Amino acid sequence: MKLSILGSGSWGSALAVHFGRNGFSVIQWCREPEISEEINKKRENSVFLEGVTYPESVRATNSPQEAIGEADVVLSVIPTQFTADFWKKHEELLRGKPLICASKGIDVKSLKTLSQIYFQIFGACENYFVLSGPTFAKEIASGLPAAAVIAGIEEEKTLQLVKALNTKTFRFYASGDVLGVELGGALKNVIAIATGIADGMGLGNNARAALITRGLHEIRRLGKAMGAKEETFYGLSGVGDLVLTCTGNLSRNRQFGLSIGRGEGKVDEKYVVEGVYTVKAVHQLSRKLKVEMPISEAVYKVIYEGRKPVEVMEELLSRPVKEENC
Amino acid sequence: MKLSILGSGSWGSALAVHFGRNGFSVIQWCREPEISEEINKKRENSVFLEGVTYPESVRATNSPQEAIGEADVVLSVIPTQFTADFWKKHEELLRGKPLICASKGIDVKSLKTLSQIYFQIFGACENYFVLSGPTFAKEIASGLPAAAVIAGIEEEKTLQLVKALNTKTFRFYASGDVLGVELGGALKNVIAIATGIADGMGLGNNARAALITRGLHEIRRLGKAMGAKEETFYGLSGVGDLVLTCTGNLSRNRQFGLSIGRGEGKVDEKYVVEGVYTVKAVHQLSRKLKVEMPISEAVYKVIYEGRKPVEVMEELLSRPVKEENC
Repeated sequence: MKLSILGSGSWGSALAVHFGRNGFSVIQWCREPEISEEINKKRENSVFLEGVTYPESVRATNSPQEAIGEADVVLSVIPTQFTADFWKKHEELLRGKPLICASKGIDVKSLKTLSQIYFQIFGACENYFVLSGPTFAKEIASGLPAAAVIAGIEEEKTLQLVKALNTKTFRFYASGDVLGVELGGALKNVIAIATGIADGMGLGNNARAALITRGLHEIRRLGKAMGAKEETFYGLSGVGDLVLTCTGNLSRNRQFGLSIGRGEGKVDEKYVVEGVYTVKAVHQLSRKLKVEMPISEAVYKVIYEGRKPVEVMEELLSRPVKEENC
Repeated sequence: MKLSILGSGSWGSALAVHFGRNGFSVIQWCREPEISEEINKKRENSVFLEGVTYPESVRATNSPQEAIGEADVVLSVIPTQFTADFWKKHEELLRGKPLICASKGIDVKSLKTLSQIYFQIFGACENYFVLSGPTFAKEIASGLPAAAVIAGIEEEKTLQLVKALNTKTFRFYASGDVLGVELGGALKNVIAIATGIADGMGLGNNARAALITRGLHEIRRLGKAMGAKEETFYGLSGVGDLVLTCTGNLSRNRQFGLSIGRGEGKVDEKYVVEGVYTVKAVHQLSRKLKVEMPISEAVYKVIYEGRKPVEVMEELLSRPVKEENC
């Protein structure tokens, strides 16, 4: 099977390396010519996936035409805020091909999820799939075991894709809830910033576990209001990814939160902290849909309203809640 | 309010210190005379809660009569496998008093949860409550924020207790699902051993997140088959405690798993690793109730059947699962 991977960040590169190692013929589109050149000549992406050797089965290119043209399946792993533009620009090339989106986030300009953006551009969704779950890029690139969900609206097509992409170390499960799966992947980044802040302040593991639990339920509430299935948030793409991102130090969203909590508020600018965008969208969506999201709101206040993390965290942890899971 | 705390392990002692600091008059029963003497004379329990200073409001005793006699509420924090004997022996003293059980585990001899043991001894459950949630003892003793659940069969009584015990740093939520709350606290210890083994083997955070997610669902399945409410497992005493125990290094169950995964298999014998008992009970319960519990079964095989962790973990992570959350 010929796989096209769009994007040369950590996650796109890890997927390219993984599938390349597992018998797929992979062509990776890179925006930066330096990166494609390095991949093709030195078998490495030293900017975004340092220390990992690319297999010979992966070829890199700067040409979207070349990357997409002959592919059987396209994996879109472009930073969320640039995805709409890329898809629009290359609509003709992409139309009719199965496209699996592995980017996580909400488009801030339109407040739309990536499946909603896709539908707006292509007018149909039967070729659209989302891949999401607890998957740190570095671990996938190292060949460590992982599991994730692939969701699509047509069951048969989704199952075929799952079967075709399954390998011994990286296993996929099929889902029919595209919206639920993509929302889990997007919204957890905001909770990861919140738990990072709490950890940076030294509030401990008990507080973090409480924030993760309550965070899960505010994600579920918003998801439900948007039309997703509740049970999706209790699966790999929901609680699984949430736990990973909130407890694993490879998460950039967590690192960003940690630096805020420690009073530094700095972040490596090479990487996108997707939750910083997502929280803007969540702030507006939760108002629009009248869903209370106290943890996401606290993160919004810290990032966009200059509130002090200590104050906001204290408000959050002493907030009266009548019943659990509500 | 006069609180009696039964048990002088880390958790009982942390609760004694916490409530003592927050205006309660606390009397703590200790089995070992050395410990009660140290608490009373040196204001410390150096064996189980090193470095924490007891407030003057806590008095320790070896006499169950003295500890329970004048208390308004009894907090039972005796190691699970010794709880039945203690309650039977002191049935008369305990009868009629509100008793909150904060021990976590399943009685291996009888395969009963602690509420079921209580019912067997006392013939009624309206005075029985369970306290469970993501609460590392050391953090509670340090005054760090936390939240947990108190469940009882009578709503009004449970709410009164929640109100009476709430403090600014340690917050309680009421639940009516005694069985679900106690099962969450007991069964997560087995999953924590499993994720510890995986971490000890260096399988990474992705694999850990997948095991936690699938572990949550096998806990929920067994809980449901036993009569608990599904949603309880998605709350603080379910997923909250599971995440804490599987990711926090203060967990003894996790440490035990880590040592197995690293090929050491040793554990500090001063402390009880409750999951080692619980997995025995789970092994039998899952057969009896015909609930598939592959992760718990893997832990059972490693501990009681001498199977190699590497083999068992490989089987587990490559196990075909048709649908998520099933």
